Amino acid sequence: MLSREDNALLTRVERGTPMGDTMRRYWLPALLARELPDKDGAPVRVRLLGEDLVAFRDTQGKIGLLDELCPHRRASLFFGRNEECGLRCVYHGWKFDVEGRCVDMMNEPDSESFRQKIFTTSYPTLEAGGIVWAYLGPTERQPAPPAFGWLRIPDTHRQVSKVIQETNWLQGLEGGIDTSHAPIMHRLLTTESKRPGFRPDNPFVKGKPPVLAVDVTDYGYRYAGIRQLDGDRIHVRTYQYIMPFHQIRPSRSESGVPLMAGHTWVPIDDEHTMVYNWEFTTIDAPLTEEDRLERRLGNGPLDVDQTTFRSKRNRSNNYLIDRQVQKTETFTGIDGINVQDRAIQESMGAIVDRSREHLGPADRAVIQARKLLLEAVRTVEQGGTPRGVEPTYGGLAAAEAVLPRDADWRTAALPAGSQIEQTV
Amino acid sequence: MLSREDNALLTRVERGTPMGDTMRRYWLPALLARELPDKDGAPVRVRLLGEDLVAFRDTQGKIGLLDELCPHRRASLFFGRNEECGLRCVYHGWKFDVEGRCVDMMNEPDSESFRQKIFTTSYPTLEAGGIVWAYLGPTERQPAPPAFGWLRIPDTHRQVSKVIQETNWLQGLEGGIDTSHAPIMHRLLTTESKRPGFRPDNPFVKGKPPVLAVDVTDYGYRYAGIRQLDGDRIHVRTYQYIMPFHQIRPSRSESGVPLMAGHTWVPIDDEHTMVYNWEFTTIDAPLTEEDRLERRLGNGPLDVDQTTFRSKRNRSNNYLIDRQVQKTETFTGIDGINVQDRAIQESMGAIVDRSREHLGPADRAVIQARKLLLEAVRTVEQGGTPRGVEPTYGGLAAAEAVLPRDADWRTAALPAGSQIEQTV
Amino acid sequence: MLSREDNALLTRVERGTPMGDTMRRYWLPALLARELPDKDGAPVRVRLLGEDLVAFRDTQGKIGLLDELCPHRRASLFFGRNEECGLRCVYHGWKFDVEGRCVDMMNEPDSESFRQKIFTTSYPTLEAGGIVWAYLGPTERQPAPPAFGWLRIPDTHRQVSKVIQETNWLQGLEGGIDTSHAPIMHRLLTTESKRPGFRPDNPFVKGKPPVLAVDVTDYGYRYAGIRQLDGDRIHVRTYQYIMPFHQIRPSRSESGVPLMAGHTWVPIDDEHTMVYNWEFTTIDAPLTEEDRLERRLGNGPLDVDQTTFRSKRNRSNNYLIDRQVQKTETFTGIDGINVQDRAIQESMGAIVDRSREHLGPADRAVIQARKLLLEAVRTVEQGGTPRGVEPTYGGLAAAEAVLPRDADWRTAALPAGSQIEQTV
Repeated sequence: MLSREDNALLTRVERGTPMGDTMRRYWLPALLARELPDKDGAPVRVRLLGEDLVAFRDTQGKIGLLDELCPHRRASLFFGRNEECGLRCVYHGWKFDVEGRCVDMMNEPDSESFRQKIFTTSYPTLEAGGIVWAYLGPTERQPAPPAFGWLRIPDTHRQVSKVIQETNWLQGLEGGIDTSHAPIMHRLLTTESKRPGFRPDNPFVKGKPPVLAVDVTDYGYRYAGIRQLDGDRIHVRTYQYIMPFHQIRPSRSESGVPLMAGHTWVPIDDEHTMVYNWEFTTIDAPLTEEDRLERRLGNGPLDVDQTTFRSKRNRSNNYLIDRQVQKTETFTGIDGINVQDRAIQESMGAIVDRSREHLGPADRAVIQARKLLLEAVRTVEQGGTPRGVEPTYGGLAAAEAVLPRDADWRTAALPAGSQIEQTV
Repeated sequence: MLSREDNALLTRVERGTPMGDTMRRYWLPALLARELPDKDGAPVRVRLLGEDLVAFRDTQGKIGLLDELCPHRRASLFFGRNEECGLRCVYHGWKFDVEGRCVDMMNEPDSESFRQKIFTTSYPTLEAGGIVWAYLGPTERQPAPPAFGWLRIPDTHRQVSKVIQETNWLQGLEGGIDTSHAPIMHRLLTTESKRPGFRPDNPFVKGKPPVLAVDVTDYGYRYAGIRQLDGDRIHVRTYQYIMPFHQIRPSRSESGVPLMAGHTWVPIDDEHTMVYNWEFTTIDAPLTEEDRLERRLGNGPLDVDQTTFRSKRNRSNNYLIDRQVQKTETFTGIDGINVQDRAIQESMGAIVDRSREHLGPADRAVIQARKLLLEAVRTVEQGGTPRGVEPTYGGLAAAEAVLPRDADWRTAALPAGSQIEQTV
Repeated sequence: MLSREDNALLTRVERGTPMGDTMRRYWLPALLARELPDKDGAPVRVRLLGEDLVAFRDTQGKIGLLDELCPHRRASLFFGRNEECGLRCVYHGWKFDVEGRCVDMMNEPDSESFRQKIFTTSYPTLEAGGIVWAYLGPTERQPAPPAFGWLRIPDTHRQVSKVIQETNWLQGLEGGIDTSHAPIMHRLLTTESKRPGFRPDNPFVKGKPPVLAVDVTDYGYRYAGIRQLDGDRIHVRTYQYIMPFHQIRPSRSESGVPLMAGHTWVPIDDEHTMVYNWEFTTIDAPLTEEDRLERRLGNGPLDVDQTTFRSKRNRSNNYLIDRQVQKTETFTGIDGINVQDRAIQESMGAIVDRSREHLGPADRAVIQARKLLLEAVRTVEQGGTPRGVEPTYGGLAAAEAVLPRDADWRTAALPAGSQIEQTV
């Protein structure tokens, strides 16, 4: 559990809050690159850490991310004209380039010196991995670009999607780094069921819950759930947590191709989160069109409106829970593994009251993430650089493996990673 | 009128408020028994006095009423699995029995001592009269079960329904114990109209408004509207008010069978009320399917969505008022006697500002109810037991009768009731 | 820009606020006369300066404008019966005449002296120009009736409509008196386009932005945008601003008939405005049915629901912006000149933060209106009568003309108006 004060500290992300200032030290996913397909195309509204912004791709392909409201009379640039290397407000024709400079004023053509004094808020952006990333922090602290391994994979082998979660960002993260719930909530009740989920004969499900080992690193932590199997073997499943809100986990496509996958929980504001989902094939095989539907997770175009990014199965329709399916086929009666996650996390309310929790040993990874986040807030307050800002996480992987009992899962299952400070 | 302070005192019912504490001394209707038809069936969300709860019927038929949120990580038990004498949270598999004990932890199978310390909020329940009743107060003050006469009637002769009213509970009660409005608002304009309402040749309508007599009793009050008729006769119509929110009134089915009927206004929260409606035949004749449609009141399945319990004629569609019908057939132009009540009570706003009322002699019953409710709050604050908690109201009836002018309506029209303290 | 304090001062209009008290010194449009077509017809809800009222036309044709809630128990008179020179509450049958007197009490027929003490809030009304006007201020300060020229035009030659704008009133006014935006936002991109807007060959569009001259008068101001044309000519377009919220501008029907037109921005409450739109032919030619559709402005029955007065193209559907049209035909891609205005003004938020503006010379008319409004608030606070209350504005006109360079546009283009205090 957390005190009410610490709960507020970790969940509030508006500018000027401690966690808001901390988040602004990282590169953040702002939108999908495919939302800005064309030069001089339609601008897109972006809400990020409670700030209302507008993104556009200019004539040269550069991406601007500006305050949504024009500094002249505060009209929305969403309705603006994207033309000749700038976004022009339609109210009085003020035009801004991707760096926020006012480059034209239709209503004041003779006021050159006035125009040169006008700037609007503009944030640096870059494109990587099918995502437009933005940096909302102090200029002098701007870090190196994000260096996740999945950003270097060709599009043919990688899928990226996004979906809105109607909760605070931390609720999403805490579900994503909690291996403990996965074989419980996402299990199937019979081996016959064709619905997405873990079959009851999966070692991940049928054995006892795993022992957890959490290795704190300079980027966050990696951790493993370790299960004793019959005979002299163990089953190991590892996750990576890269601060402040990235997860890497092992996965597998429906056709059996091994995947590396992950989520990123980006705060839209205190009570809404944009979840980015990525996966790529770890063998040299492109993803298929079927893979890109993400049926199993419930994150693809069949499940999520690709204009609003709202899930079709959502709180207002109880996620289309089928109580008969819950009795006979799946643990929740809700279809889609990440739909199940959103259902349960949204059921906790927009910001769960962590002062009323009862945590046990199985919650160790969640507890450790909170400790690291509180540490990051203090680091930023003291002028330092929190874990995960420096791109030391580029070579990370997550893995699932069956190993001899006395194997060292750290070396046997994973490539060399960052230095381990402490194992908890 | 009430001061703003007293208005807040009587209308606010969350835990820890004076009226909230008072309400929690009574057995309260929590949901209809038919909402939990099956053992191990789907759980149901219940909001009661501002508390979010979940109800379920377990394998043995016992009804649990628990905090909606699991004490582990605060996920909703509404999405839970109702299985083998307990409701199991799908997030990490914690399971609770009807008494709130944690009886299993899938994610912590080896943490027996931790599990034994975990309890969730659980309230006592009982089934009576087609309703699941709950007690939300201090254990040591739990009263005897509710003993209303209508609870002892066989289902064949009794109908019970419910509908949401979008106001504070007191607005509903005050309409229900206000005989003064009934022959005005619910009247028909012509004897030819087939719509529900009181015909203009009804003695209840055509004469002068009644003189009111209010007899304060140990359960609340009973009161009568007494009208002088032509000749040496009087028309008497009595109601019972059982504290804090029950009404009993005489009624009659469409086919002319005499009924005893009533409402109970249970606070969902400060601004929403669940109105329970009951009626039974006072002769040995079962109710018909037609009777159970409750067309006349507008409370049955044709008028109220039986999943959400929202009225189809509601504030958002102006209750489908027909101004031509209002000109020529009925006083309001709105169909359904209780739809008329909800329309006018909801039009006053969620919590009416009683400091701006102008009350007259016809409002005596309303004024008296407020006095008794203020007294009940003080009684509870002083550690006592308010009127209506002890089941002294079991034999009560309401009646409508034409009597000789000098008859004693109390003895002629009603069975023996509780002792009268004072007539106002 | 304005300080936050002055921004609040000018935008808040509830009773008791400085601007609320100032607004209450003027006659205000309350609803369209055609919303009350019949004697004894259905009453209509009216929200005006944050007050919830109900309007009705009585048996004699007089219009009452009363507090929506009955003073007895605070039920809504919207559901009331409009009968025999009064509006009767259906709850207990209290009836009020257009002056707010209680003229009958069905539930208290013998309480004559009680009844005579009961009054409800009632505001004076008058009908003029197809509009019901109301005065919500102190009785002793009630001014002469509104005397706008357009009120004296026969219905055959005049069109009046209304539409809700989802912003504070001042945002609407500031758009309406800002000639600077019109040839920018409302322009067409090609002379071929048949959509509403100013063609690129219009002198209003193709030249440089105008020099503004603002003449402060006893009713507000008139102002002109003056453009140098080729040769020795100037183009002059004048507007009138009559305080607190009226505009007059020159216009032209689709068939080329010259029109005088204007808007009035009446506060529904702090965050919603009812915009009244009027126009009349300045030659003796009646308006056609086509003219009354107001397609060009987007204010007519094809564009605005005539029951709710909500625009069909609105914030929730991004005003049906067509980005391809925006690229090739019109500056905004939104159809309807006043739809464009509402789109951009609503995009600024319900109450724009004027402390974050950057105003230039082209905003002179907006700046001057704010000065006059702040002056009006101070005048009222000191017990005086603000500009525009006395009907000195009856003969005003607005004009558009091409004149010789050295012509005096004030005398050449406009009829004699009020005295000019100052030109800014």
